[in-house]
Amino acid sequence: MTDDATLQAVLGRIDDGLDAARERWFAFLRIPSVSAQPVHAADCRAAAAWARDALAGLGFDAAVRETAGQPCVVGHHPGPGGTARHLLFYGHYDVQPAEPLDLWTAPPFEPVISQGPRGARVTARGAVDDKGQVMTWLEAFRAWHAETGGLPVRATVLLEGEEEIGSPSLDAFLAANREELRAETAVIADTNMWDADTPAITTRLRGMAYVQIDLRGPGRDLHSGLFGGAVLNPINALTKILGDLHDAEGRVQIPGFYDGVRALSAEQQREWASLGFDEPGFLAAISLSQPAGEAGRPALERLWARPTADLNGIWGGYTGVGSKTVIAAEAHAKLSFRLVAAQDPTRIIDGLKQFVEARRPRDAQITYQVFASSPGIEVPTDSPFVTAARAALADEFGRPAVLIGSGGSIPVVASFRSVLGMDSLLVGFGLDDDQVHSPNEKFDVRCFHNGMRAYARLIGKLAA
Amino acid sequence: MTDDATLQAVLGRIDDGLDAARERWFAFLRIPSVSAQPVHAADCRAAAAWARDALAGLGFDAAVRETAGQPCVVGHHPGPGGTARHLLFYGHYDVQPAEPLDLWTAPPFEPVISQGPRGARVTARGAVDDKGQVMTWLEAFRAWHAETGGLPVRATVLLEGEEEIGSPSLDAFLAANREELRAETAVIADTNMWDADTPAITTRLRGMAYVQIDLRGPGRDLHSGLFGGAVLNPINALTKILGDLHDAEGRVQIPGFYDGVRALSAEQQREWASLGFDEPGFLAAISLSQPAGEAGRPALERLWARPTADLNGIWGGYTGVGSKTVIAAEAHAKLSFRLVAAQDPTRIIDGLKQFVEARRPRDAQITYQVFASSPGIEVPTDSPFVTAARAALADEFGRPAVLIGSGGSIPVVASFRSVLGMDSLLVGFGLDDDQVHSPNEKFDVRCFHNGMRAYARLIGKLAA
Repeated sequence: MTDDATLQAVLGRIDDGLDAARERWFAFLRIPSVSAQPVHAADCRAAAAWARDALAGLGFDAAVRETAGQPCVVGHHPGPGGTARHLLFYGHYDVQPAEPLDLWTAPPFEPVISQGPRGARVTARGAVDDKGQVMTWLEAFRAWHAETGGLPVRATVLLEGEEEIGSPSLDAFLAANREELRAETAVIADTNMWDADTPAITTRLRGMAYVQIDLRGPGRDLHSGLFGGAVLNPINALTKILGDLHDAEGRVQIPGFYDGVRALSAEQQREWASLGFDEPGFLAAISLSQPAGEAGRPALERLWARPTADLNGIWGGYTGVGSKTVIAAEAHAKLSFRLVAAQDPTRIIDGLKQFVEARRPRDAQITYQVFASSPGIEVPTDSPFVTAARAALADEFGRPAVLIGSGGSIPVVASFRSVLGMDSLLVGFGLDDDQVHSPNEKFDVRCFHNGMRAYARLIGKLAA
Repeated sequence: MTDDATLQAVLGRIDDGLDAARERWFAFLRIPSVSAQPVHAADCRAAAAWARDALAGLGFDAAVRETAGQPCVVGHHPGPGGTARHLLFYGHYDVQPAEPLDLWTAPPFEPVISQGPRGARVTARGAVDDKGQVMTWLEAFRAWHAETGGLPVRATVLLEGEEEIGSPSLDAFLAANREELRAETAVIADTNMWDADTPAITTRLRGMAYVQIDLRGPGRDLHSGLFGGAVLNPINALTKILGDLHDAEGRVQIPGFYDGVRALSAEQQREWASLGFDEPGFLAAISLSQPAGEAGRPALERLWARPTADLNGIWGGYTGVGSKTVIAAEAHAKLSFRLVAAQDPTRIIDGLKQFVEARRPRDAQITYQVFASSPGIEVPTDSPFVTAARAALADEFGRPAVLIGSGGSIPVVASFRSVLGMDSLLVGFGLDDDQVHSPNEKFDVRCFHNGMRAYARLIGKLAA
């Protein structure tokens, strides 16, 4: 445990250096490191190099390391030696595609600061997910380094560049560098607070299976007058198949989809009910008013403990201005499932294929591309790391942290457990209105600031 | 009736001038007059000017005439005067969009000649629909003009530039110029032969209603992890609605859709059955093998006498490379109905709206854009014009013409009847494998040549 004077000096450095920290954050955001789009491959490498250099400047032995895809960045800081805690800080330098560009109020890779309902905020692709969150612990390192010349814990850093495309190269990288990367726990800042005043530790994450379905019919596009009524229409066929995905109660109709999914315990239901989730407000913030999803379950249960099937994209035929009387040769959809711990992503994808095959017109040729497959996860809530994080967050925010779930997927948590035999501590500072993955993604400067301070405190709590 | 020597001389001019005719046709094809795409507005005007100049060179009093949209071209040739027949030759100079461009073997607006299974063919957008077909009668005029210094019939020409987007300005133009445009019959070359050896006169056309459905849900794109399972997904909602369009027997489920649609007479069924339509061959040519559409009806009945509901385009969410875990704010579809004579397009569109509204999630906002609304039509088969056309076609091809239906829509036929009180004679020279509206649209040179000659003969048959 760090003495209070040192901690206060570290926190003072964060407060005094806020503007400079923001400039570094902006430099990181200006790199359009979109992993899904091959045109941005060089930008991904530039973001990795930027992070390596930042770590090297803080006393880390840091390097850009090749994978089968975008490179990782790995850094090692020895800390004070001896019995010091060893933590693996994980994040990702890649970001989601910025499209549709015309809905941004400013170019997505030119961060701008403006006033929001909670004070200053920064708008850019990656502002929060995950560059802004990564900066919270990176700047905490910087303050410790500046004040004490080092860190009071042993720290390994792992940044990957393919999180937004399902981390296809990460497991192999972890397996190939198992001894180097293993620590006592992973620390991950890619999650949200409960609200702007209430810090949270996330102990439950949904997994994901992401599949593209390509349906092909006629060998070429056809005139809908000359052929309509006598030939397979791929868009009609695909919508008919996908229209069956849910029943009238919002339950997913894929065979075996809910196998093994457990009902929430009464205690868990009570705990989440006590959070007083404002479902009407949650919906109103996105211009909606009606609960959706599985009928008869509370919203937090639907978001944190129930699996989903969401179409993320669909396309086929003529999509331009006006009309074209065409029967398209092909139709396509991107479909993802958010999964809970009991579900096996491989069996879910197999079930999808059975579901589609049972509805496939004989003339339709269907292929599948799997872009992600990771299980849901629950992490233990009684570790020394969760205990330290609860204390650090309570000190920073003046109120207890809540233990929550997240509907989002962080597949690396499953990989850390299965490949490195290590659990994760999930402490992040995003808010529900951050527009993650959407146009005008933002991060409140207040959250950024609290996040840096909270990570400085956590490092202090875990100091030898 | 023309004397045979004159006719043979006219036909000889067509045969001798084939290469020169093809050069004129190519010049017309090189103008990318895509009416659906605003970027091609000037090209549409250029195509109109080209046609005006061509008519002026053949003794027509011709002009480009403004409408609310793309202009029309109108030309008048007095013919021999007296009791000469008065025909209105109608066509369109606009073409379908050429997309998807990457499927063309050569640029769509650079016509190329190559060898196909029936000899030389010309590939370009508009090769047959409708520039190539328009050229058949325009070149017949040219041969008559060259041989006799005029035409043996009175001819009015009307070319429009918005046929491929549903002719939004045509009815107003017809109404405003009713006296000028009215003739004894319209003559339209925008239809097919029965096969490459068998000429046809089309007496039955399907109409069309074309609607774009725009469904809006959340006020912005959402992260599917943070929101999935608790909010309306517009793509899920749209596919669920549209997946209900047909029942398992292929019948359209819109309320009142089949109201008034009559069963085919036994005689009509026998006549079409006698054509020996090769359904397996029709399907194999487009890489299919299974009959589709309404179960239990012959293919020609499904194509010519039964209405359809075909999705022509669908889009929403992320459609790029790889994955994006987004719940899109919007989803869109283009849907068209091919209609038969008994159906009222307005009632069909109202029925669609009822159908969608009955399935609309309460949070979904849905708007409709109507791009076309025209009834199906049947034209009389006992007119002097049909009689003359049967004779001209039999002379040219050495076998009788068959009276057929067409699944395609030529809304102007309905407009000529309702606005000008005039029926239409539909004689065209397209073939089923012309790839109309598709990449690599083509027109066989043999069909082009027979078409010019057949129109020269028809003009002769109708001569005073």
